[in-house]
Amino acid sequence: MDSIFLDLPARNAKPRSSGLTMAIDNGIPHGAFADAMASGADYVDVVKFGWGTALVTPDVERKFEVLRQLGIGYYFGGTLFEKFVQQERFESFLTLCRLCGCRYVEISNGTIDMSLEDKAYFIKRCAEEFTVLSEVGFKDADRSSALTAEELLDAIHADAEAGASYVITEARESGRSGICRPDGTPRDDLVDAILSSDIESDHLIFEAPTKDLQTHFIKLLGTNVNLGNIAPCEVIGLETLRLGLRADTLMHFEQARSCA
Amino acid sequence: MDSIFLDLPARNAKPRSSGLTMAIDNGIPHGAFADAMASGADYVDVVKFGWGTALVTPDVERKFEVLRQLGIGYYFGGTLFEKFVQQERFESFLTLCRLCGCRYVEISNGTIDMSLEDKAYFIKRCAEEFTVLSEVGFKDADRSSALTAEELLDAIHADAEAGASYVITEARESGRSGICRPDGTPRDDLVDAILSSDIESDHLIFEAPTKDLQTHFIKLLGTNVNLGNIAPCEVIGLETLRLGLRADTLMHFEQARSCA
Amino acid sequence: MDSIFLDLPARNAKPRSSGLTMAIDNGIPHGAFADAMASGADYVDVVKFGWGTALVTPDVERKFEVLRQLGIGYYFGGTLFEKFVQQERFESFLTLCRLCGCRYVEISNGTIDMSLEDKAYFIKRCAEEFTVLSEVGFKDADRSSALTAEELLDAIHADAEAGASYVITEARESGRSGICRPDGTPRDDLVDAILSSDIESDHLIFEAPTKDLQTHFIKLLGTNVNLGNIAPCEVIGLETLRLGLRADTLMHFEQARSCA
Repeated sequence: MDSIFLDLPARNAKPRSSGLTMAIDNGIPHGAFADAMASGADYVDVVKFGWGTALVTPDVERKFEVLRQLGIGYYFGGTLFEKFVQQERFESFLTLCRLCGCRYVEISNGTIDMSLEDKAYFIKRCAEEFTVLSEVGFKDADRSSALTAEELLDAIHADAEAGASYVITEARESGRSGICRPDGTPRDDLVDAILSSDIESDHLIFEAPTKDLQTHFIKLLGTNVNLGNIAPCEVIGLETLRLGLRADTLMHFEQARSCA
Repeated sequence: MDSIFLDLPARNAKPRSSGLTMAIDNGIPHGAFADAMASGADYVDVVKFGWGTALVTPDVERKFEVLRQLGIGYYFGGTLFEKFVQQERFESFLTLCRLCGCRYVEISNGTIDMSLEDKAYFIKRCAEEFTVLSEVGFKDADRSSALTAEELLDAIHADAEAGASYVITEARESGRSGICRPDGTPRDDLVDAILSSDIESDHLIFEAPTKDLQTHFIKLLGTNVNLGNIAPCEVIGLETLRLGLRADTLMHFEQARSCA
Repeated sequence: MDSIFLDLPARNAKPRSSGLTMAIDNGIPHGAFADAMASGADYVDVVKFGWGTALVTPDVERKFEVLRQLGIGYYFGGTLFEKFVQQERFESFLTLCRLCGCRYVEISNGTIDMSLEDKAYFIKRCAEEFTVLSEVGFKDADRSSALTAEELLDAIHADAEAGASYVITEARESGRSGICRPDGTPRDDLVDAILSSDIESDHLIFEAPTKDLQTHFIKLLGTNVNLGNIAPCEVIGLETLRLGLRADTLMHFEQARSCA
């Protein structure tokens, strides 16, 4: 009865296809990066080098090497893809990804003007060589609030059909646009629409950079929801939320346990 | 007259019984932890491993060893105690604390439903082996705003009588519940009630994770107020506030000096 | 046409007289400091040891040595100067700066009561030995909102005439006072007044601790605007904003490029 081990929800171990944690590197120093990845290696599945930070980081290959040693995948934030597309250098973007040893690419249209058809073309092309993560939603707060559930579902379906392995719902590093309101709360209309559709949540990654967003999606979809844009130094904090070891989710999981 | 040394308020040195700084580790990487503790060793008296982070941190004993080397005490956040109690594993919690070399334990009822009588039982039991820090106040914002001054004083008195060496006033890592409002400001009615009671502030630790809260309590209770939930990398910043070396408290201490 | 290299705005290289990045150390641990400076060495021109943190940091000379090795200048935040002045120990402040190997000093009147005439005296005196950065604007939110454009311009002119090489516009570490409103947005009336005056923006450093403020000044004054109070771990993120490699400035620079 009274064991040293707590009853905790079943957490998928690595390598896993659901329960993913995608960490975002917003350009932190080399030592801090290596430190966070070493301590969080059991929990981080993939790292996004946010927007164009990788191009500005001196000796960025040191970061790639850290991740290769730990068996953690990595890719560049979709904004970098969009920058290359805006300058009509998509093939160069692929060259860059190859040279950097990326196994993943992120395809998004959160900043530049790009039709779903064009986006599908890029996804198809990338899927020949890479695991494709596509992102839906906009970075601009005004465009984000104008986004309808129907448009969001259309975008998710189009990306998945074009070959995206995972579709990421935008929330930025701040949690204040994409599927979130400027006050940082999630737009329930969009989340509800996704969850009542035929889209499997295992193929979605919810950007959830704040504790409140993480709590929200864990309560909604469970321990093994896929979450993204996690700060490297908050990976362990997220794991406690997933396991009901922090106040915000403690009673949620205790109630589930007592019902089981 | 013109000495190289500034006139600064008298700050108690370690080991001290008042003027304590309790740092909270929210699950930061090993290197960052060791770095912050080494740089802040003169200022940090005790470290709380926030909620259940210690259970999720790989090789967590490395963190304990860092603190033992520096002579800094440590304990687990009260939420972990509550988790064990909720699963009827209180004795296991004590075993865990013993195995981890904790000299302190924190007893709280901020998340689960626990009467003051039950809490007093746990405090008494722990006080046989450990220095007990009890925590008063709730993590939930609604329960926090319903808390009256009378209830708060009752809880502090009950905990102290049961054997708590220090009573911690809840403010969470965010400074937005417990004795704080959701907007992050302290509830003056509660603070006033405490200060006009017979409770000695040397036996209280005020959770003050934000600069504004730290400033508030330093102006109210002086350089050597006991403050908790300090981020490991903000320990030195807090020390400047205590000494009037930051704008927020500079004139406060200069006016005190010119009156002296 | 399709080159591996993106077209990016021309960024001045170090040593540079415009496009400066001034990082603020708010008392971070030694390892984190050395790490951030090593990774950001190409981008950081000068470091401010915020307010009195340098006096409280154990073995602070290790931080000075890191910067000397990297050829990065440093100085103490103006609040420390004001503290010494308030205690009538200005000459001791100069002694301290000399002993610590500072080549810069910051002269401000953001916290204590000091006339422009007295400030000019201190600037002149310091300019005999140091490169002087003066700061205009107040730390207190109420005094900040009462500040008029005329008063601000008068202060900038007086400081420059007295010998300040750069004038810094106050925004604090939070971006919520000085030339900013308590909600963190810049006061356009003050910024417009500066830009439509004869003051050259190359001689100004805008404190811009938040991404929104950084974006604002980069859009207004270009890639090579002088920005200050940058967190050490956000130096690389700032560089991406300067280059149009983050969503917030991407289209701004793409439109400029297509017009060129």
